[in-house]
Formats: sequence, C-alpha cells, structure tokens
Amino acid sequence: MTITSLVTGGAGFIGSHVAAELVRAGHRVVVLDDLSGGDAANVPDGAHFVAGSVCDAGLVDSLFAQWRFTYVFHLAAYAAEGLSHFIKRYNYTNNVIGSVNLINASVNTGTVRCFVFTSSIAVYGDAEPPMSEDLTPLPIDSYGIAKYAVEQELKVSHEIFGLPYIVFRPHNVYGERQNIGDRYRNVIGIFMNQILRGESCTIFGDGEQTRAFSYIDDVALPIARSVDNPRAYGQTFNIGGDTPYTVNELATTVAAAMDAPLRVEHLPARHEVVHAYSSHEKARDVLGVGTGSVPLAEGIARMAAWARKQGPQEPSVFDGIEVDKNMPPSWRAVSRIR
Amino acid sequence: MTITSLVTGGAGFIGSHVAAELVRAGHRVVVLDDLSGGDAANVPDGAHFVAGSVCDAGLVDSLFAQWRFTYVFHLAAYAAEGLSHFIKRYNYTNNVIGSVNLINASVNTGTVRCFVFTSSIAVYGDAEPPMSEDLTPLPIDSYGIAKYAVEQELKVSHEIFGLPYIVFRPHNVYGERQNIGDRYRNVIGIFMNQILRGESCTIFGDGEQTRAFSYIDDVALPIARSVDNPRAYGQTFNIGGDTPYTVNELATTVAAAMDAPLRVEHLPARHEVVHAYSSHEKARDVLGVGTGSVPLAEGIARMAAWARKQGPQEPSVFDGIEVDKNMPPSWRAVSRIR
Ligand SMILES: NC(=O)c1ccc[n+]([C@@H]2O[C@H](COP(=O)([O-])OP(=O)(O)OC[C@H]3O[C@@H](n4cnc5c(N)ncnc54)[C@H](O)[C@@H]3O)[C@@H](O)[C@H]2O)c1
Ligand SMILES: NC(=O)c1ccc[n+]([C@@H]2O[C@H](COP(=O)([O-])OP(=O)(O)OC[C@H]3O[C@@H](n4cnc5c(N)ncnc54)[C@H](O)[C@@H]3O)[C@@H](O)[C@H]2O)c1
Repeated sequence: MTITSLVTGGAGFIGSHVAAELVRAGHRVVVLDDLSGGDAANVPDGAHFVAGSVCDAGLVDSLFAQWRFTYVFHLAAYAAEGLSHFIKRYNYTNNVIGSVNLINASVNTGTVRCFVFTSSIAVYGDAEPPMSEDLTPLPIDSYGIAKYAVEQELKVSHEIFGLPYIVFRPHNVYGERQNIGDRYRNVIGIFMNQILRGESCTIFGDGEQTRAFSYIDDVALPIARSVDNPRAYGQTFNIGGDTPYTVNELATTVAAAMDAPLRVEHLPARHEVVHAYSSHEKARDVLGVGTGSVPLAEGIARMAAWARKQGPQEPSVFDGIEVDKNMPPSWRAVSRIR
Repeated sequence: MTITSLVTGGAGFIGSHVAAELVRAGHRVVVLDDLSGGDAANVPDGAHFVAGSVCDAGLVDSLFAQWRFTYVFHLAAYAAEGLSHFIKRYNYTNNVIGSVNLINASVNTGTVRCFVFTSSIAVYGDAEPPMSEDLTPLPIDSYGIAKYAVEQELKVSHEIFGLPYIVFRPHNVYGERQNIGDRYRNVIGIFMNQILRGESCTIFGDGEQTRAFSYIDDVALPIARSVDNPRAYGQTFNIGGDTPYTVNELATTVAAAMDAPLRVEHLPARHEVVHAYSSHEKARDVLGVGTGSVPLAEGIARMAAWARKQGPQEPSVFDGIEVDKNMPPSWRAVSRIR
C-alpha cells in the first residue's frame, strides 16, 4: 500500500528535512507551503509541491480529498517567538486557525493514521529548566500560547474523534536550509548572516541567557520516523540538544566556524525567557534517538559551510506589524505598522 | 470626564445587562454586536449600537479611534460549548481572533484603563469541583481552549504592554433576555422553549450531571462594577450561583415555574463534564457581591414570566457545521455540513 504524507511547511527548514526523510522512506510526499518563510528550492526531489496556505480551508479540504493522506506532518508556522506579541492576529490565524483547518480535514477524511505536530519549547514559558514533558505548560508569549492551544486541540480531537497524534516540542534548531535572512528569529542564522555582511553580531541584553541548540538531523529524523513507533502515539516529546550554552558562547563558536573575528553589539534586553532547555529522557526512552548526537561545534561548522555558499542575505522586514509599542528598538526602526 | 465603555456582545444576554448597568452608572456606552446570537432589541436605551463583528479588525480599529474607550467589556462570543468540537474554525476565529483584534486596538489606542473579559468555567475542564481560581486550567473542549488562550493573552499583554484587565469565569447563567431559541446551549432556555412548544424536555444522558445555575443579576452587576474596584485589577474571578443541582432537578423546577406537567426525554449522553461548579470565595472577598443571592426557584420564576411573554421560538440551526462526525444524533439530524 502506498503511504501518502502531507508535510506542511515543507519548503521551510525543518519541514524540508522531514519531507526528504519521508521520500527516502518511500512515502508519496505532498508539501503544502505558502513560501512566507521558506523557499520552493528546499522542497526535496520526489515530493509534490503545492503553493498555498494552511489558512485556506477550501484548499486544505480539496488536498485531503484528492490525496487521502495517511500521515500529516504539520510544520507550517511563523516561528518568530519574540515578534509574536506584535503580530498577534497573524500569529493566531497562521498557527491556530491553520492547524484547525488541518485537524478538521483529517477528521472528515478519515484516512489519517497520525497527525504529527511540531509545537515548541515555548509552551513552557519561564518554567525552571530543564523542562520536562510532565510540567503543565504556562507559555508567556503569543507564539507559545498558540502552540499550546493546538496541542490541547489535538488531545481533545483524539478524545472526540479518535484522531491519533504525536506532539514534538523542539527548541533552537539550526542547520542547513535554515532561513538566515529573517531578522526576527534563528539567532545562529542571524549571526552567520551578520558576519557574511561584515556586521557585528547583535545580542539582546548581556548575552548570558542560555539555550540548548539542536542540530537539524537530531530533530527532523525522529519526527519523520515517529509514525512507525506505536509507543510514540498520543505522546508529547521534547526533542533536541542537551547542552545549554550562553548566547555569548554561541557567538564565539559561530565566528570561529565562519573564520571571522568576533565582533558583538549588545542591544537592550528584550522580554524573553532567560534560561530555556529541556530534558530528553522521554525521547531517549521511547524514540531511542535524537538527543543531541551532533556536537555544537560540528553542527555549526556544517551550517557555516552551507551559509557561505548561500552568501549574505538582505534581512527581511515583516510587513504587517499590528502593534509597535514596546518593540525592541532595532526592530521598530525598520517596521511598518499596518 | 466622560467615561466611554465598549460592550461587545451587548445585544446578547449577559452583555445587554452589563450595558444597561453601565448606562445607569452614567457611562457613554457603545455596543458592538453582529447579531449572530443576540437581538438589537436587547440593546438598552441610551447605548449607541454598532452592528458588526469583533472579527472585523478594520471596524474595531476605527471604533477605537473614534470613541477612545475608557473601558472594554468583551462579551461577544458564541458560547455553545458542546457544539464547539464541530465548529472549531468558527470557534477560534470568533473567540480568539476577535479578542485579539480588541486587545491590539486597546494597546494601540492607549486610552483603555481596563479590559474586562468574560471567560468561562469551561477552562477548568473536568477538574474536581468546586473549582477554584488557583487551579491551572485544563479545558477539554474547543470553547474552553479558546477562552483559556484569551485569558493567557491578556496576562501576557499586561506584562508586555501594561494593559490592565479583569477576567470573569461565569457558569450556567440564566434569566431574562437569554436566547431560548438556540438548540445547542442554555439548558434552562431550551427547557422553557420546549415547554412552550408542547414538547418534552430533552436531557443528555441520565440527567444526574450537576451544575450550579447563576441568575443574571448575580453575574452582570459584578462584571459592570468591577472596573471601579482597584483590588479586582489583574485578577480572575469565578462568578455565579453556589448550589449545584442535577439537570433532572432543574427540569422539575422549570416545569413547575412554567405551570406545566414534567415530561422528559433522555437522549444518549454526550461528551461533557459530569460535575461542574466553582467556589466563589474570591469573588465574595474582593468584589463583595454576586455569589448566588437569587435562589434558583425565584430566578427561574422571573425568567419563566418573561419567556411566556416571548412565546415559543423556532429553534435555530447552526449553519456552518465543519465536522459532523460523532455529533449528538439530535443535532446531527438537523445540521447542514458546509
Ligand atoms: N526552528 C526552531 O528552532 C523551532 C523550534 C521549535 C519549534 N519549531 C517549529 O517547527 C516548525 C518549522 O519551523 P522552521 O524552523 O523550519 O521554520 P521555517 O520558517 O523554516 O519553516 C516554516 C515553513 O512554513 C511555511 N509557512 C508559514 N506559514 C504558512 C502557512 N500559513 N501555510 C503554509 N505554509 C506556511 C513557511 O513558508 C516555511 O517554509 C514550525 O512549526 C516551528 O514553530 C521550530
Ligand atoms: N451564558 C452563560 O452561561 C455563560 C457562561 C460562561 C461564560 N459566558 C460568556 O459570556 C459572554 C456572553 O454570553 P451570553 O450567554 O450572553 O451569550 P449571547 O449569545 O446571549 O451573547 C453573545 C453576544 O455576542 C454576539 N456575538 C457573537 N459573535 C460576535 C462577533 N464575532 N462580533 C460581535 N458580536 C458577536 C452575539 O450576537 C450575542 O449577542 C460570552 O463571552 C460567553 O462565552 C456565558
């Protein structure tokens, strides 16, 4: 029997790696992506690409009717956590309404054997790290609230409609094909692009905030393979690197990998969680993989080689800011309010 | 100084009582309501009525620019909890996107001194009753998930933008001006309408599920007056009646008040919380009011007198069901899928 998988956001960073792994595994793969943050060139050979939005319920319904998907890997989102306060409507439309369109279609079609959703470590808010899956989420930004609402929706949809699901909460993923031209997110990509453009690396606050960075393979492969693991069903998994680094340490590592002198500019601190990293016991135990097997320096060296080939990117400006009050000044300076 | 208050959903049941109380208190009152569940006739004399949706961001922005509201009382919602599984997109659009439009406009205008939001006891899901405000919510339906997301959004918007807010979690409110023609919600209104139409009262399951019913004055007046109480700011309050009754007992009370013989038809149980009532210590302590001062038999007698004057209503059919799988058969029989 042919297995047909939908990968939303499959022209993006993590989604394109998930899609590539599914193609390798012999699935028929359909990618749905509106290219708001991704690039059609990222869609792997062998996947069928549909340009469009998960917010378009009519399009979603017709794709489900046409392809009768076995699995849904829902990665489409705008994952600019820090910006989400200033684009609340866009955030909830894209992340909640878009997800609900896919859940409705999955239930109505009745062919979907698993709905895999990439949530985020953002659902934990400022809980004491390392964050573990048995904590009750308490997000502190609009992005985290939206992700948590979708997690709850999946739980309820399983209870009412029997829709099977798996939730992943990755954190600070980096690697080849990441959008390095987005000024609002992906600190490693931002640093690489700044170095390529001959600029200083900008750091919010003193740079002593910590994050555990996750190389793409340690995230994308477990996501793609999860549907074959019955023990993963109905579960939620933290996934990604184990070792926290300060943002200052990160800048040093990136500059070294880019063969560039370290130049840093500290900006005023923004509203963000100071220490965020999570435990991966559960992923290790149930999935047996994906818990930071690629060390930071090695992963960054791989990404740096790729980024150098890409060359410097013009940093994009988000063209639909809804509120610009209390925005970080460096963002406000370039933002256009709508 | 003139105080100008926006009441969304002010053509509805609770909102019209809140608006009337604000008019009495001397506020200039603007009601925004799309009449999807309310009736323009409910808007109190002296209030300015605008027909439109909170989901229309352009309209919302222009009203805030024009009126420069002092207070926002946000009651617009489609509160059909049991139906929300089957109208997820509508539920999140109306309840989350609509609320976010008002939060954005409140922050951008900068005149709003308090944003009062009516959430619901639904955020508690099936927690052990009596539910108290210090429980971390764990909703079990789409309506409750949406309400909880807006609660979290208000907390975050206060942190980032300094927007003051008060959250109310009413439960099972009844009284004059309640829509008795909606087949999906308001069990007391449904019973009254069934009796007026000479039909049996329909009960999901054995009728031994319990709820504490809340007479409108015990809910609307504390909501309207909360903005004058500095201790209420930034707080969340359960509000409403204290005494739980079974739905069977309720049917008996309603039939007696309507001077009708008791005729009951039991339908298959639906997915719902069995026992839901909440503690009102905090409301008693901080607000000093509104904790079930009107006994059930008296409140129901008042509502019955009003309902008899209204006469029987043709039960409405929700015209935009998104999923009809596993719907209660009595609803499914009349629903049109879109
Ligand atoms: N990168 C991380 O560190 C990280 C961490 C936690 C969670 N996540 C989640 O992983 C997923 C993938 O993130 P990513 O880092 O690959 O970002 P990305 O921007 O590279 O990929 C997201 C893709 O979704 C597409 N997209 C956005 N809105 C869409 C819409 N409405 N309809 C269709 N396509 C749409 C974008 O064009 C993009 O190609 C997201 O859900 C994100 O929230 C990422
Ligand atoms: N009645 C209860 O028992 C109860 C319990 C808990 C919470 N609540 C909440 O109290 C509020 C009022 O509920 P109610 O019982 O008075 O219901 P209602 O239906 O009588 O009032 C809601 C009003 O909002 C209007 N409305 C709906 N969507 C709108 C939109 N998009 N734009 C503008 N107006 C819109 C409707 O036309 C209606 O007039 C709701 O937020 C509800 O969730 C009610």
